[in-house]
Amino acid sequence: MNSPHTPTQPLVFESDPVAMRARVAEALRGGLRVGFVPTMGALHAGHDSLVARATGECDAVAVSIFVNPTQFGPREDYSRYPRTFEADCGRLRPLGVRWVFTPSVEGMYPAGDATRVHVAGPADRWEGAFRPGHFDGVATVVAKLLSAVPATKAYFGEKDWQQSAVIRRMAADLLLPTEIVVCPTVREADGLAMSSRNVYLSAPERSRAAAIARSLERGSELWDRGVEAGEIERAARESLVELGFEVDYWSIVCEDSLVPVVELPAAAGGVRPRIITACRLGSTRLIDNRGLSPR
Amino acid sequence: MNSPHTPTQPLVFESDPVAMRARVAEALRGGLRVGFVPTMGALHAGHDSLVARATGECDAVAVSIFVNPTQFGPREDYSRYPRTFEADCGRLRPLGVRWVFTPSVEGMYPAGDATRVHVAGPADRWEGAFRPGHFDGVATVVAKLLSAVPATKAYFGEKDWQQSAVIRRMAADLLLPTEIVVCPTVREADGLAMSSRNVYLSAPERSRAAAIARSLERGSELWDRGVEAGEIERAARESLVELGFEVDYWSIVCEDSLVPVVELPAAAGGVRPRIITACRLGSTRLIDNRGLSPR
Repeated sequence: MNSPHTPTQPLVFESDPVAMRARVAEALRGGLRVGFVPTMGALHAGHDSLVARATGECDAVAVSIFVNPTQFGPREDYSRYPRTFEADCGRLRPLGVRWVFTPSVEGMYPAGDATRVHVAGPADRWEGAFRPGHFDGVATVVAKLLSAVPATKAYFGEKDWQQSAVIRRMAADLLLPTEIVVCPTVREADGLAMSSRNVYLSAPERSRAAAIARSLERGSELWDRGVEAGEIERAARESLVELGFEVDYWSIVCEDSLVPVVELPAAAGGVRPRIITACRLGSTRLIDNRGLSPR
Repeated sequence: MNSPHTPTQPLVFESDPVAMRARVAEALRGGLRVGFVPTMGALHAGHDSLVARATGECDAVAVSIFVNPTQFGPREDYSRYPRTFEADCGRLRPLGVRWVFTPSVEGMYPAGDATRVHVAGPADRWEGAFRPGHFDGVATVVAKLLSAVPATKAYFGEKDWQQSAVIRRMAADLLLPTEIVVCPTVREADGLAMSSRNVYLSAPERSRAAAIARSLERGSELWDRGVEAGEIERAARESLVELGFEVDYWSIVCEDSLVPVVELPAAAGGVRPRIITACRLGSTRLIDNRGLSPR
């Protein structure tokens, strides 16, 4: 099937979840494959790559822009999270996106809202421990977004690895019809993972931030040489602390269960290992991850 | 549109959620209104009335039969809950049902399942307090069932009033496209609300059980005479205890929030009051409820 979208089509803006669903349902009834890229705006090249994958695989693509309050903790950056709506639209216009879904907080959380989707398992540790309630907010808003945009495929960035594991788990458990596609992280020239939060970094912080990605590369090399996981982790944490980072975690885990490989039985087969990390530099918290070869 | 089902059509059995969803999606694409009656089997005249409403309002009706383990507490009656599959099918055959959805526990809870839908608000008290985790199990399984059977309308019995309030809340909050329809309780000749659990009652218990419905009628009369809610509740509990019931609760509540009217400010307007009760007779727990006139 030829893709009916062209880069010149105008964006269609929709803020009502029920009307949005009707638009998507009509496209699906017409036999179109619908792609969906949920975002919080502040779009960058990482988002572009998700949209490019979606337009390549689907016939009509929706991008949502919604800064979801329930996934921010009370002392987190909800109010100062970058909001760049005009720039976002300019960015999406040439990419062949059909719909921009821009719900309000009231539209996504109806009066009296009392429902939360909770994922245990892969959500329990790491970001789940450092940001209590974060993944309940993520799982809940993604469930709602996938009701409003019941797409054939939805695209998420590998940069938020644990989030992608939580969303895959939720979609499987709730028997959702949408296929969850996880796309490679896009990086700056020095290796820093693209993130809307990188704008928080001062110039000196920005130049040091690439050390996170280098620690992942170094960890991967040590892993390939057969160094024991606990030893790799200690060395990585020490080197990042020496560079002035506060390390929330830097761990080698099973990429689906998020359980540290040091906690797994030695004979555990079929584990796909991955380094995950969260580091703070001044007031900015950065996360990154990298897949490792199976041992 | 004329209803394309006829009482003589054979039932189509489907146990796979993905295949079930495909059947429903095809019917919806064809312009049919799809009705859905989720049940745990052990069908009785109450279920018949839900099916009759569904076939009257929709063009194709699905009935699910699934005894959901996650809504039973560890010391509740999951293993002895009545399972009467052959009789259920015989009951459904003349009712014009198109599909019988019979998923397995493994089909509804995939390996590694870690997701629960939690509804606060209307789920917090009453059954929520006496049966911890019950409404998480209900909300979770209904979310899954509505993924597998994305019907136009889904039908629930008013007998489980609080459950219907929880499900309406969840469907609104998760922006589900299915309309939730709540249907009147069907009663035995002596007033006892139809329930699959009535088979647990011994003959002497059965003859006493109608006192629950009589207490609701009496409460309604007192309410209409202007008697204060707390006084009506005390009298009802006392009379039921005298008759040998253990009363978990017998309360007049706002029917949407499930908050007792005695806790509401005197000036609270627009409250739709309802008596809800749960009583135990021997080892059998029975629930019932009755709407009251607004004051």
